[in-house]
Amino acid sequence: MIGKSVPRVDAYEKVTGRAKFTEDLLPKRCLVAKVLHATIGNGIVKSIDTSEAEIMEGVVKVVTFHDVPDHCYPTPGHPWSVELAHQDVADRNLLTGRVRYYGDDIAAVVAEDEIIASRALKKIKVEYEEYPVEIHPRKSMYGSKPPIHFDKKDNVLARSNYFIGDVDKGMEEAETVVKGTYKTPIVQHCHIENPISYAYMEKGRIVVVTSTQIPHIVRRVIGQALGIPWGNVRVIKPYIGGGFGNKQDVLYEPLNAFLTTQVGGRPVKLDISREETFCNTRTRHAIEFDLAAGVDKEGKLIAKDMHSYSNQGAYASHGHAIAANGLTSWRLQYACPNIRGEAYTIYTNTPVGGAMRGYGIPQVCFAIECFMDDVAEAIHMDPLEFRRKNLIEGYYEDRYLKPIAANTNGIFECLKKGAEYIHWDEKRKKYAKQTGAVRRGVGMALFSYKTGVWPISLEIAGARLSLNQDGSVQLQLGATEIGQGADTVFSQMVAETLHTDMAHVHIQTVQDTDVSPFDTGAYASRQSFVTGTAVKHCAEILRDKILAYAKTLLPEIDTRELSLRDNWIWADEEQVISLAALAEESYYSLTNSSVLTAEVSEQVKKNTIATGCCFAEVEVDIKLGKIKILHIINVHDSGKLLNPQLAEMQVHGGMSMGMGYGISEQLILDEKTGRPLNGNLLDYKLMTMLDTPDIKAGFVEMDDPMGPYGNKALGEPPAIPSAPAIRNAVLHATGVAFNENPLTPQRLIDGFKKAGLI
Amino acid sequence: MIGKSVPRVDAYEKVTGRAKFTEDLLPKRCLVAKVLHATIGNGIVKSIDTSEAEIMEGVVKVVTFHDVPDHCYPTPGHPWSVELAHQDVADRNLLTGRVRYYGDDIAAVVAEDEIIASRALKKIKVEYEEYPVEIHPRKSMYGSKPPIHFDKKDNVLARSNYFIGDVDKGMEEAETVVKGTYKTPIVQHCHIENPISYAYMEKGRIVVVTSTQIPHIVRRVIGQALGIPWGNVRVIKPYIGGGFGNKQDVLYEPLNAFLTTQVGGRPVKLDISREETFCNTRTRHAIEFDLAAGVDKEGKLIAKDMHSYSNQGAYASHGHAIAANGLTSWRLQYACPNIRGEAYTIYTNTPVGGAMRGYGIPQVCFAIECFMDDVAEAIHMDPLEFRRKNLIEGYYEDRYLKPIAANTNGIFECLKKGAEYIHWDEKRKKYAKQTGAVRRGVGMALFSYKTGVWPISLEIAGARLSLNQDGSVQLQLGATEIGQGADTVFSQMVAETLHTDMAHVHIQTVQDTDVSPFDTGAYASRQSFVTGTAVKHCAEILRDKILAYAKTLLPEIDTRELSLRDNWIWADEEQVISLAALAEESYYSLTNSSVLTAEVSEQVKKNTIATGCCFAEVEVDIKLGKIKILHIINVHDSGKLLNPQLAEMQVHGGMSMGMGYGISEQLILDEKTGRPLNGNLLDYKLMTMLDTPDIKAGFVEMDDPMGPYGNKALGEPPAIPSAPAIRNAVLHATGVAFNENPLTPQRLIDGFKKAGLI
Repeated sequence: MIGKSVPRVDAYEKVTGRAKFTEDLLPKRCLVAKVLHATIGNGIVKSIDTSEAEIMEGVVKVVTFHDVPDHCYPTPGHPWSVELAHQDVADRNLLTGRVRYYGDDIAAVVAEDEIIASRALKKIKVEYEEYPVEIHPRKSMYGSKPPIHFDKKDNVLARSNYFIGDVDKGMEEAETVVKGTYKTPIVQHCHIENPISYAYMEKGRIVVVTSTQIPHIVRRVIGQALGIPWGNVRVIKPYIGGGFGNKQDVLYEPLNAFLTTQVGGRPVKLDISREETFCNTRTRHAIEFDLAAGVDKEGKLIAKDMHSYSNQGAYASHGHAIAANGLTSWRLQYACPNIRGEAYTIYTNTPVGGAMRGYGIPQVCFAIECFMDDVAEAIHMDPLEFRRKNLIEGYYEDRYLKPIAANTNGIFECLKKGAEYIHWDEKRKKYAKQTGAVRRGVGMALFSYKTGVWPISLEIAGARLSLNQDGSVQLQLGATEIGQGADTVFSQMVAETLHTDMAHVHIQTVQDTDVSPFDTGAYASRQSFVTGTAVKHCAEILRDKILAYAKTLLPEIDTRELSLRDNWIWADEEQVISLAALAEESYYSLTNSSVLTAEVSEQVKKNTIATGCCFAEVEVDIKLGKIKILHIINVHDSGKLLNPQLAEMQVHGGMSMGMGYGISEQLILDEKTGRPLNGNLLDYKLMTMLDTPDIKAGFVEMDDPMGPYGNKALGEPPAIPSAPAIRNAVLHATGVAFNENPLTPQRLIDGFKKAGLI
Repeated sequence: MIGKSVPRVDAYEKVTGRAKFTEDLLPKRCLVAKVLHATIGNGIVKSIDTSEAEIMEGVVKVVTFHDVPDHCYPTPGHPWSVELAHQDVADRNLLTGRVRYYGDDIAAVVAEDEIIASRALKKIKVEYEEYPVEIHPRKSMYGSKPPIHFDKKDNVLARSNYFIGDVDKGMEEAETVVKGTYKTPIVQHCHIENPISYAYMEKGRIVVVTSTQIPHIVRRVIGQALGIPWGNVRVIKPYIGGGFGNKQDVLYEPLNAFLTTQVGGRPVKLDISREETFCNTRTRHAIEFDLAAGVDKEGKLIAKDMHSYSNQGAYASHGHAIAANGLTSWRLQYACPNIRGEAYTIYTNTPVGGAMRGYGIPQVCFAIECFMDDVAEAIHMDPLEFRRKNLIEGYYEDRYLKPIAANTNGIFECLKKGAEYIHWDEKRKKYAKQTGAVRRGVGMALFSYKTGVWPISLEIAGARLSLNQDGSVQLQLGATEIGQGADTVFSQMVAETLHTDMAHVHIQTVQDTDVSPFDTGAYASRQSFVTGTAVKHCAEILRDKILAYAKTLLPEIDTRELSLRDNWIWADEEQVISLAALAEESYYSLTNSSVLTAEVSEQVKKNTIATGCCFAEVEVDIKLGKIKILHIINVHDSGKLLNPQLAEMQVHGGMSMGMGYGISEQLILDEKTGRPLNGNLLDYKLMTMLDTPDIKAGFVEMDDPMGPYGNKALGEPPAIPSAPAIRNAVLHATGVAFNENPLTPQRLIDGFKKAGLI
């Protein structure tokens, strides 16, 4: 079953609209909550008057920051740690009177319906004292009065750095030293389904049904936020309409949980608008990179230096993990004896940066891969040749975090496929010396990406299997289907290991922390690797139990080896009992009945690096400042493909996100307040089908020894390389190096003007 | 925690109306199904015309018996068997054109709402060919043309018999031989919530949410009824409003499952009215008993003979199991060297007999215990003394089914308590020679009852426990809370074995066959005994895993013995780590994390007999034919009481049912058609609070070695002895022996007239 393009197990449900999302499950007479957001970018609430709202008919409860527990809690979807040093930064309250960004949550209304709730919000009177707003990290890092958080006088949430070899000496010895500064914008996930949850109480416990990637983590954080035992919280995750990392954060679930406790446990819905999703959930961190490199006469990198400045926004969320992840990747993949890296993550008065597909790597990849082209150009070398010269072939491992290793490394094969598809050599020459207003170019970029989070953080996954009377199995996981096809590939894994077909595997789609095995959820590109390891182990245990039970039924089978194939038990090459007959016996035998189940909770102490590249051919209309993508391909080494068709779809989606990152998407903030100016799907230029060229997904399949089925990361990687590949193609077409994405018409026009092209 | 009257875990939910029952969970835009019932008592459908119904606006689908799968399936809530001989009788189709009783199901309508569905039913035109109706088993057993089922020319579903010693010789040698015929009526469970279910399709499978006692069995029977793999069915059981055995049968769930497949998997509700519940679900079998006994000079039983005739009604359902259960009890408890027993179960054209609290024992107990009084009277002996003389003291076991044994036997203690409470000796004398229209009497009856169904049938139970981060546990069972307090006592069991408190045990109330461990469900009086055994074992496994994990955290603890008490791990008498800290470590340790869970699926090959008695004092108004119960007590030996308050409530409820069985409840059928004449809660005289005297529950607690916590049956026993105790009190008061219950005014008047009292 592994390696086959079986249809998604949820295809029919989703196509027919029958799949149940959170909104579809709302209980009858569910109250509605709405959040009051601050209308200043930095300051404090001097006074808040809710009296008019409270007396409105249909208003059930109004709470303000005065009413919520006053201890802080962390929100990111990381596994917790029992070690203080590894715990996430706890800097958020359910509601706050200390406004840190435009839109901060200061009060909430619970009402009988949406309209009353909205009207009640308008009746709340707030007086503020305003402080200066700082939206730029490289300014904020010199401090503000008062500090944004705690006593952090420099507003630096965290800084990390490392030295390998002697960079200064390397630079001195270099034939050429190149420097560049690269900037990435704030973008947003734009999942179809905005965050939505509803909460109610049951037997003294709080139940939250929510559109999340991480139900078990949401459970923990609600416990932390409300200061109640975590076992008193139950989180249920139905089908969700995308997440891309935004729902790898605990968003409004703790507030929703708190609100139901304020109305006697009645069900309360808290869903938010698209505008709130842009402003009040999470974004991709904007990061600035100062890069420098020294190369020797042969064009080999002999020194690299990176200093990065990540804009955290107003709350820590995933915090420094994103910038640190980028910093780690600076020392991977390209061989170089002397490397220095330094990363800052800095609080500002802007919307909060969190997890987003690629977790810092799209940013750093944009910087590095633009820079690699710029270095190649400086030494007059073909950028592909330059990369091939400097890339590590075969196995390599991270210096500091050894389990992170390229156990298989298909990058050279990927480059070959990509170059062939785009006709690299031919077109690099053909487009070398163009004139005129419309010019073409080819560009490329590559990346590496670690699959799970070990050993930076814990990797643990659980699985439970139960054999039904008809020989089919129930599969339960804490890992989540978030649109990526997880339920399908997990089912394939079980079918593979039990040597059966898809019809015999019934996966539980809804996660319920009361009954689903513990798993930290859908993030990184971990699930098919980490959870897959648990699933395989669990299926092996069940298979062994089945065969052991078969032996009790078949005492005459003594020396022959039993195996499970095609829903039969085989003794050597003879079919001896069908799995269905065995299963029925296991349920109903009067002499020896015991339903066969298997469960594992498995810590996974391994990791592996996936790789890949993007090649793009673009046509640039210099006068219009318009990029047309003519051809684009991603080629991935993600190990063995579990389901080629799903893999291809995953790549298509990621490329769409990467192209948007390259040419159109950015959340623009008002300089004075930090307020988003285009936080809606009309003004925020998400790629649509009309903007999307034919896109091509290529693969280099190598069985990875660490992957449970030879597989490596494929969830996030597709989103990484397209933006720098497009930028490099524009450089090739026009000779103009744009060091900040997205390459919007305005940015292009400005650049071309500056370069004298118009 | 065992033995404490902790509050019900669902008390708050139920008192506040927040507990979710099936009706509360209906999905939006749920279609409504209604069933067309035959209006003849026996015959065939010659033609059925649905065309007018089909064209009605809002009618989505009409199906008739022509449209359903034509293989038969069994309905009773028994564990399945892999042996053909032990499988239940399969004699039912989803709909039928062969009408076997008034109200048989011949067609169904699915419509947009209830009103349209009801109107559509009236538009269906049916022509019948009628056969003679037979509602009396002792006539039906001589056959009908055509037979009611199959080729059973005698309409006898089953017959069983046994011989112990030589009954004829015993009768010959007896000083006195007494004979009597006793009859019990058809009664109904009258649970508050009528059967209700809804069904829909999900990923090609059928989901049925239903008010049932036996979700895992419903799953299997739907599979059998529709002829689909059982794994393709998912059954979910929310809170239910009582069952008492009626919901230990698979009722309309298979039809409901079928109907959703006929409307493309859209959700379809099928709930039925109170009238349908009386007529079309299940009832308690009416049974007639011909009894004879020979006693020697000392008043010792030396021969006993029973021939019983059970009215099965039109379909097999639980079938002969009920009559056979009664037959078994004839050879238990009272010592007698020569015993004969014979039981017939006979099809008739009446509503179907099924499981009901006590499963045949209320019937046979009425017969036996009336008979014991009649024998005592015949030999001029005090009936209590007569019983004491003949009862077995201490251990006894069933001759044929040895694991069924009174491993502890508190009957003499129970009798002592009951007699003291009712002032037996004093009042037997005081009321001996009364005259006048209003007379008083005291009577009593006793019983024995086996706890589970082993070895007659399979006993298997599953349990899963998972340790939360805060040291609390999640408990999952396939066993069901049906109002009896199961969730509470299971939680107590876990708290007891893990030595924690109730707040640390979170039980999963809803059973879902996709995820709940396999358990056959709530019937017999099995759950606290059979499931309790699994729960205890599961908790012991988890405790051992916790202690083993503690050892890995505390390498310095070498020789000291670890134990788990009060949410701490103790090394000898020192508290070394809290359970919460250990649990958090088990989730999040970077070196050794594995969430601690335990699961068992356990066949339970043991059984044990509970016992008890009822003593009643009544006042009989001879002219009005009215019985007033002055005092009544049940005294039970049910082993160790798990929760004394819940036990008392269980006894109160059972006594209410027993008193109704004694004096007011009966389903009256029309002689010509078999149609229920009083199948509603107005005309069917259920006991109300106004009819109910102060009732008293007494207990004799003996730790039973078979019970996981010393416990024995208490679910059904309370319903058994009250009816004959009241009848015997009336006999004492008036000298008139009524051999048929209930003792309604009309029956009393008739009896007193016949006896010359009026």
